[in-house]
Amino acid sequence: MARTTDTAARLPAALQLSRDGSRTLSEQLAAHYAALIRQRLLAPGSRLPSVREGARRHGVSPHTLVATYDQLLAQGLVEAQRQRGFFVRERAAPAQRGEAPAASPPDSPRVPVDASMLIRGMLGSGGRPGPGLGTLPPAWLDAPMLQAALRRVLASGREDELGAAALHYGEPAGDPRLREALAQRLADVGVRASPRQIMTTLGATQALDLVSRALLAPGDAVLVDEPGWSVEYARLTLLGMRLLPVPRGPDGPDLAVMEALAREHRPRLYVTVSVLHNPTGGMLSLASAHQLLQLAQAHDFHVIEDDTYAHLAPAHAPRLAALDGLKRCFHISGFSKILAPGWRVGFVAAPPDWIERLIDVKMLASLTTPALLEQAVAVCLEQGLLRRHAERVVARLDAARGRSVRLAQGAGCEFVCPPQGLFGWIETGIDTEALAQRLLDRGWSTAPGSLFHARRQPGTKMRINFATAQDAAFWREFESEREAMRR
Amino acid sequence: MARTTDTAARLPAALQLSRDGSRTLSEQLAAHYAALIRQRLLAPGSRLPSVREGARRHGVSPHTLVATYDQLLAQGLVEAQRQRGFFVRERAAPAQRGEAPAASPPDSPRVPVDASMLIRGMLGSGGRPGPGLGTLPPAWLDAPMLQAALRRVLASGREDELGAAALHYGEPAGDPRLREALAQRLADVGVRASPRQIMTTLGATQALDLVSRALLAPGDAVLVDEPGWSVEYARLTLLGMRLLPVPRGPDGPDLAVMEALAREHRPRLYVTVSVLHNPTGGMLSLASAHQLLQLAQAHDFHVIEDDTYAHLAPAHAPRLAALDGLKRCFHISGFSKILAPGWRVGFVAAPPDWIERLIDVKMLASLTTPALLEQAVAVCLEQGLLRRHAERVVARLDAARGRSVRLAQGAGCEFVCPPQGLFGWIETGIDTEALAQRLLDRGWSTAPGSLFHARRQPGTKMRINFATAQDAAFWREFESEREAMRR
Repeated sequence: MARTTDTAARLPAALQLSRDGSRTLSEQLAAHYAALIRQRLLAPGSRLPSVREGARRHGVSPHTLVATYDQLLAQGLVEAQRQRGFFVRERAAPAQRGEAPAASPPDSPRVPVDASMLIRGMLGSGGRPGPGLGTLPPAWLDAPMLQAALRRVLASGREDELGAAALHYGEPAGDPRLREALAQRLADVGVRASPRQIMTTLGATQALDLVSRALLAPGDAVLVDEPGWSVEYARLTLLGMRLLPVPRGPDGPDLAVMEALAREHRPRLYVTVSVLHNPTGGMLSLASAHQLLQLAQAHDFHVIEDDTYAHLAPAHAPRLAALDGLKRCFHISGFSKILAPGWRVGFVAAPPDWIERLIDVKMLASLTTPALLEQAVAVCLEQGLLRRHAERVVARLDAARGRSVRLAQGAGCEFVCPPQGLFGWIETGIDTEALAQRLLDRGWSTAPGSLFHARRQPGTKMRINFATAQDAAFWREFESEREAMRR
Repeated sequence: MARTTDTAARLPAALQLSRDGSRTLSEQLAAHYAALIRQRLLAPGSRLPSVREGARRHGVSPHTLVATYDQLLAQGLVEAQRQRGFFVRERAAPAQRGEAPAASPPDSPRVPVDASMLIRGMLGSGGRPGPGLGTLPPAWLDAPMLQAALRRVLASGREDELGAAALHYGEPAGDPRLREALAQRLADVGVRASPRQIMTTLGATQALDLVSRALLAPGDAVLVDEPGWSVEYARLTLLGMRLLPVPRGPDGPDLAVMEALAREHRPRLYVTVSVLHNPTGGMLSLASAHQLLQLAQAHDFHVIEDDTYAHLAPAHAPRLAALDGLKRCFHISGFSKILAPGWRVGFVAAPPDWIERLIDVKMLASLTTPALLEQAVAVCLEQGLLRRHAERVVARLDAARGRSVRLAQGAGCEFVCPPQGLFGWIETGIDTEALAQRLLDRGWSTAPGSLFHARRQPGTKMRINFATAQDAAFWREFESEREAMRR
């Protein structure tokens, strides 16, 4: 318990307590602090506010605070230190007594904590959607449409089929109806793939994991975009790969750097988001795509094209997999960002001679994926429900983006890439990691630039979500904290 | 196309063609052959029957056979060789033309083909359930119960909750309601775990994969039972681990061998099915369990207890995790074997100080798992539906086992372990791999002993499934093929 910070002492102002009697105030407060601890927004070693100070801040009695901390103690999330107060435990679970404990998890976990924090923040239970959110706000999705699609599958009058979907493991490649619908959908964005080249996965996340496992061996070098999606860095690191970051500009990766790295390190793979890149929002130009594939050919590496934001992008945006004809590209996407995060439906379209190996690896990782939910997504695709929903979302996002861009520019920020899609990558002029900490203390979750760099270098850029950065109150606090930092 | 066998020429007698007009005969035949090829029951290079011979065998016109082979050609599954006939392609997909193809999948795949074949056989589309089946027959499961549970979740009047299950990623640890129900269920088998120690997974398969990834680094040594579940060998091999097989007897592993291996190789992990072991059906004795945990303590390795067959076993069967108090044991199980294979719901109960790391690895592998299906399983547990269903299955299995044991013994086979649970491990006196090939030609899928050995040594034992080995016709053909082999 060497490290203590007073982060917690400044948290959290944003909590709204409900006094309708459905839950006691101490239960609500305990749940709030527990969520902050589990999401690692309160780091191990942080001190919680004193009972008196917490009571004042939350507008409750000291007795309520004592009851709150008692609950956190019972959950093993915090510990009391005599005369000093309450601290977040190093581990979120009680220590073992009696026999010597088994070997503990590695001290320097192979999964970087920042990526874990980023994901947990993205999954975000508790707290309002912040400008750093990694997804569309749940309220923008269409729950009635999803329920209708699911009910249609359940009530399709084909009880035997429904039964079969539960009673059998299903096809290792994934539900045939969905794979057929996906082949159609891919044709719309210029990617020609037969249903036999498509394998369904538990979200795009599992697709990225399985392709990496099928293609790579520990120690292999992998080209990645920088800035880029930290979770991808973490996954590749967990698999034992060497990361080769390539600077990503508005039109695509820096191909001169990529060529030099390819020459020196002989990478096996390049992983990229070519369309509506996270975090910059940039789009790969046709010329860059063409040259990139020539580089891949010359240096014999594969490409994973992560098309996670496909439904927010124009259909004519050039896809690497369309140019390449799925020869050395693996094209990955899913429906968590536009349709139903909780259904976990994703897929990969692969070069024909790799699909069987991918299926083998999928079987070892999870055997199959749930056909029921895949069929519900197929309904959304077949009936045009998804297309119409996506059109509505894009229109709404366009309006939100206009407002967010004005607010950001009004606050003196510049866009590194032309604003488009869900994310903006902005230059703030100050260290965004320190800024993020200050804004978090005021209840705003943001995504500082360091989260998008392979070695977590601090920087002055940050990512905003156009859908959740429309609140003028946020930008006022952003400006005031920035001023405070400059003083 | 160097390797050709005439396996295909002797296949398949078991197909029943439907003449109700819903599908043409050639479509049915093409689907049948395609399934055999995809499951690798017809190996690449195998020759298909001549048109004349195939027509005779299936009782159709030569024209129908030509149409069948045309469809297989169009699907890229077979190729024609002038004057020689039709052969299964080396790859199940068309070759690329034009540019030089990208690097191909490794020639010696890291996933052994036998394990892949075993899983695909287990998933078994096509063909009647054979005595080698790895699961309960689908007809033994309770589709109406599953649909009722799912409808109850969908129609629980809590539209907001249902919406939430689709619109949010869900908790990384898994649905809280299911984790609560699992903690109760585990208490019934003597394993004390709080819901916070439980993480849901996409079937027990993903649990095995995630624990291995969280615990191990490539090159680590892992103790495994032999005979044992080949898919586990394949998964560990894919992860780059060194396997240390330990002979498994009726009461558990050979502890003297285990100790010697532990001393020499310093393994990080032992993976075992302690209750109703696959393939032997053996149960770990209390004394073996106690000594095994002492060994794990002395040599500081962890234990994965795969309790896949939990619901077919008496509650009082000793679990390692119960003795150990989840200190160095990871206890894994799921609901694919007893409830709903297609829902892919499994879990791991872990030592408290490992659960956060497991959740991190789960997030990198698939983010979360579908809450909707987890809630449906929770309903089955909470309402006692699963318990009553399991009681019915166990009674039915007891009757089936009695009949299968009589038939096997009547055919001169001996049981290596006392018959119990789903699987029997029998001594046949002849090479079961050659036998399996002959029986497959007659339409019976069996599980030869070689599939349960880490280095696929041939042997005279084989695994039978008590539920699907009740057909006297199978045992007659078994005897006749065995006689033919002895001649």
